Amino acid sequence: MNDRLKYLKTQLSAAGLDGMIVSNPFNVKYLTGLDAEGVLIIAPKEMIFITDSRYIEEVTNVLTIDSEIMAVDIRSLSSYDFENFFMLCENVGIEENYVTYADYKNYLEKYKVNLVETDNIIEKQRVIKSEDEISKIRTACTITDETFDYIIHNIKKGMTEKEVAFEIQRYMISRGADGLAFDTIVASGAHASMPHAIPTDKVIEEGDVLLIDMGAKYQGYCSDFTRTVFVGNTDKYKEEYDFVLNQQKQISFGFRDNANIKILIKEAERQYQNAQYSIMHAFGHSLGLYIHEEPRLRSNVDNPLKENMVVALEPGVYVAGKMGIRIEDTFLITKNGCEALTKSPKEYTNIELI
Amino acid sequence: MNDRLKYLKTQLSAAGLDGMIVSNPFNVKYLTGLDAEGVLIIAPKEMIFITDSRYIEEVTNVLTIDSEIMAVDIRSLSSYDFENFFMLCENVGIEENYVTYADYKNYLEKYKVNLVETDNIIEKQRVIKSEDEISKIRTACTITDETFDYIIHNIKKGMTEKEVAFEIQRYMISRGADGLAFDTIVASGAHASMPHAIPTDKVIEEGDVLLIDMGAKYQGYCSDFTRTVFVGNTDKYKEEYDFVLNQQKQISFGFRDNANIKILIKEAERQYQNAQYSIMHAFGHSLGLYIHEEPRLRSNVDNPLKENMVVALEPGVYVAGKMGIRIEDTFLITKNGCEALTKSPKEYTNIELI
Repeated sequence: MNDRLKYLKTQLSAAGLDGMIVSNPFNVKYLTGLDAEGVLIIAPKEMIFITDSRYIEEVTNVLTIDSEIMAVDIRSLSSYDFENFFMLCENVGIEENYVTYADYKNYLEKYKVNLVETDNIIEKQRVIKSEDEISKIRTACTITDETFDYIIHNIKKGMTEKEVAFEIQRYMISRGADGLAFDTIVASGAHASMPHAIPTDKVIEEGDVLLIDMGAKYQGYCSDFTRTVFVGNTDKYKEEYDFVLNQQKQISFGFRDNANIKILIKEAERQYQNAQYSIMHAFGHSLGLYIHEEPRLRSNVDNPLKENMVVALEPGVYVAGKMGIRIEDTFLITKNGCEALTKSPKEYTNIELI
Repeated sequence: MNDRLKYLKTQLSAAGLDGMIVSNPFNVKYLTGLDAEGVLIIAPKEMIFITDSRYIEEVTNVLTIDSEIMAVDIRSLSSYDFENFFMLCENVGIEENYVTYADYKNYLEKYKVNLVETDNIIEKQRVIKSEDEISKIRTACTITDETFDYIIHNIKKGMTEKEVAFEIQRYMISRGADGLAFDTIVASGAHASMPHAIPTDKVIEEGDVLLIDMGAKYQGYCSDFTRTVFVGNTDKYKEEYDFVLNQQKQISFGFRDNANIKILIKEAERQYQNAQYSIMHAFGHSLGLYIHEEPRLRSNVDNPLKENMVVALEPGVYVAGKMGIRIEDTFLITKNGCEALTKSPKEYTNIELI
């Protein structure tokens, strides 16, 4: 049994749980390495991955005897088998933030056991990244930097937001990424004012603000990164740009092992209020196998930052119907500070279309 | 208020419900046209879309006075507002197949009303497609056919599964698709035996079976399509190919308004048993805004097919570690039969790498 499963089992015991039903695919992947649809049953005496015939061959290829997990085709299980998994158990954990209400009722009926909420027990285990995880995130970040450098030098006159987004994806994959960490945002001109803009057929034009929010996935791990550049020789919005850049610097300056998230974020909120900018979204989030992980960087988060957390910090300023500016990097929290894992330059940048 | 919302409201009344909380983004899009994160509140006297500041500008652009839906930023709502939405209501519907168990408990606390399962009430409304929806699916299917014709003539020697998958995406988008309906499967040689294979760095080689399962999305609507071709001059697996093709022909031959899904699928299952092939996945499913919609084509489905349903039919035969063959088309159910909306040839095909 691997260390992650061992640790989870001690955590379950400590919480008075006899076992757990793990359904969230990111948690399944974290615990087992599996990339297949299915449910991991952690019972007192055995671990079983219930999948279906579409995946059974892949699953059997990944699981070894050492993993101590048995792969089972759901069609081979009787209602008696389901009841048997947690026989003599009292309380079994579920992922209440993933399992639907219909699943919950279905589990109750099938497993005939008391189901207990686990308050992100596995997500909390995923908060601190291992050497191996950090190394994969580093690679995802390097690919992202390379892609940004490539793209800002290769936007042709007449290219649309969609075409730029596609070119980003093509380049990332050519550099070894599995794919995108999330749908790329390429928002130009007034579109940039929508923090979650979807790339359109709008042509990128002289005088536009150009906001690119993108991330690569490398061996399952994400990067997250945003830059806002200015097309042509314009210095409009310099003031707003400097404000955003300064906010990112100030917050990240406080990032270190044991730093108080609440205080850092509250201070940024105060700066926004003073400057009379509205806060359109959270200043940041953690990331790893998934693009939004725990803890969020919010003023109501009680836990401190910890060494080997990986977080993205992304302040922005938006003017509806006009423009938006956001700057985002992925950071590794260290003992005495933090290291930006995405390293692209972030001074005010004018680009030329080719 | 549009006809879809009007119809839903009569359905809710008939089910004894005073309102509904709609969270599934495909249902929100179907009812409102909105592509934003948020929750649609259908209360007796008003309809409200609760979103957040990241989306408020886009949402306000889409909603008109005629839509009779008010967009509200979640931060502007007090706990009193939440309780007020369903004041004097007894029973309010939820999407039990979408809402998580944690959401369910959260809704109970916030809305202070009795929450009732709705058994896919909106999904059932989506089963029969309108003229406009069919026309979008037709376009998605045409793009898919064009892409298949392009790709089988443009696979270069040395290209990997990943590269072919990427080229498919690029071509689809260049033909006007929003993007992919789902992650493309490009599985060659032994990889084809895994029905949900993820494209790898394996090079496509002479003598390989090459299975491509792909779909385009056009204005939100999906196509679904699979072809299996043979690289080089080989006629191995001709018997298995003909079996799969025959199954698809036979089932689709029965497709028409009022046809009994159960009987059609049971007959196919009998054919598989006779030929001693195992059944690795369902023979098909419906599709529309989402790639898997109701009804599934299974031998336990009681409802008949209906005119203007859109379904994909995808029988396959797999030999673990060796090969897989699947043939899939998207069909429109008509009064007296069905029309294949994907029209690529499907006789046994040998391709040459260029």
